[in-house]
Amino acid sequence: MKVMVLLSGGLDSATCLAKAVNDYGSENVIALSILYGQKHKKEIEASNKIAAYYKTEHITLDLSSIFKFSDCSLLASSDKEIPTESYAEQLKKTGGSPVSTYVPFRNGLFLSSAAAMALSKGCSKIYYGAHADDSAGNAYPDCSKAFADAMNEAIYQGSGFQLTLETPFVGLTKAEVVKTGTELKVPYELTWSCYAGGEEPCHICGTCRDREETFRKNGLTDPLLKGDNQK
Amino acid sequence: MKVMVLLSGGLDSATCLAKAVNDYGSENVIALSILYGQKHKKEIEASNKIAAYYKTEHITLDLSSIFKFSDCSLLASSDKEIPTESYAEQLKKTGGSPVSTYVPFRNGLFLSSAAAMALSKGCSKIYYGAHADDSAGNAYPDCSKAFADAMNEAIYQGSGFQLTLETPFVGLTKAEVVKTGTELKVPYELTWSCYAGGEEPCHICGTCRDREETFRKNGLTDPLLKGDNQK
Repeated sequence: MKVMVLLSGGLDSATCLAKAVNDYGSENVIALSILYGQKHKKEIEASNKIAAYYKTEHITLDLSSIFKFSDCSLLASSDKEIPTESYAEQLKKTGGSPVSTYVPFRNGLFLSSAAAMALSKGCSKIYYGAHADDSAGNAYPDCSKAFADAMNEAIYQGSGFQLTLETPFVGLTKAEVVKTGTELKVPYELTWSCYAGGEEPCHICGTCRDREETFRKNGLTDPLLKGDNQK
Repeated sequence: MKVMVLLSGGLDSATCLAKAVNDYGSENVIALSILYGQKHKKEIEASNKIAAYYKTEHITLDLSSIFKFSDCSLLASSDKEIPTESYAEQLKKTGGSPVSTYVPFRNGLFLSSAAAMALSKGCSKIYYGAHADDSAGNAYPDCSKAFADAMNEAIYQGSGFQLTLETPFVGLTKAEVVKTGTELKVPYELTWSCYAGGEEPCHICGTCRDREETFRKNGLTDPLLKGDNQK
């Protein structure tokens, strides 16, 4: 059984890759990373390091052209600033609409690309690390269980029953994902989360705040806040 | 209300574009055509002519890199021949698996790309011209009603309830699609269907056979078989 894993280089997808390697062995796992015009291209460097650590095949795809008309703040082509508030504060302002770093139907596109490539590479499963916190309050609707269930059905039907989607963390909080990953000894020092596009984490974007809080909830310190990694 | 239409340049998608223009006016319709490494790139020329005829905005996207590992016979990179039998005969050989011109999860990828672009361009609907004949016997599972229903749910959920998918022909046969299109005066002489990649229709691939039969069922002759168009 071969498995394709969407690998963005952050905490959740790194944990998802670790789980797939744990479940099927690194020789049966293919990681897929996607450039989409994001400011924080540094996450691709992180993906390269994580895939190398786990010794899995790693494919990188450039889909930037699909987002050329989007003004999402996460994109390098946008003049909008990345918000520096927590997600709870951002959602108060959007009134329940997706946050400004929601990239239009990005995860649907990523899963469909993964499905196309997975079938070509003989995989029969896709692993996707979405968790409950990301979809809370409609911040990122393409992380919700309802979305993942529908995509699973679309992939199963549209592949002629050859491929399914697994979302092992869809019922977990981000803190619970990192708890699982800590047990699996995920090298979190290799991961990257910050949305701001700098060489070091900004510590103030929603994603930096989320990440650091996630480690604190587990009684841990984010390894990117420690020693050499802070230089 | 703005609408995005997937336009491949064949009979079904040209009819779908005509329907969208009829329903919403050409100024509210955006056609999307996709290069994916197909042998019959000539369908993009057809798409250009059809979109120009209907005076709609037209976007062309290149997603060839996603299929670089596929050996589907429809791709220019494949050594496999395009089958020269009817779909019924092909399905007897595959034993109910997709036919060799099924491009892995292509329509899922196209609909996801359309969803990403539609949200960026302020559209709230996607029109997709799949019909009942294409999915019969699992030939093209990404044309089935079950697939379209699941994709609609995925797009609705994953867009945060901003976008839906319409499949006006999903319950119709291809002959009924062309009947509708004939009433809408679709310029079928501008369309292209043949999979073989030549300058003229081959008349023997499954898609040529299907196309010519579809016109015959309506008491019509395929305009590509007539006079000047045959030169």
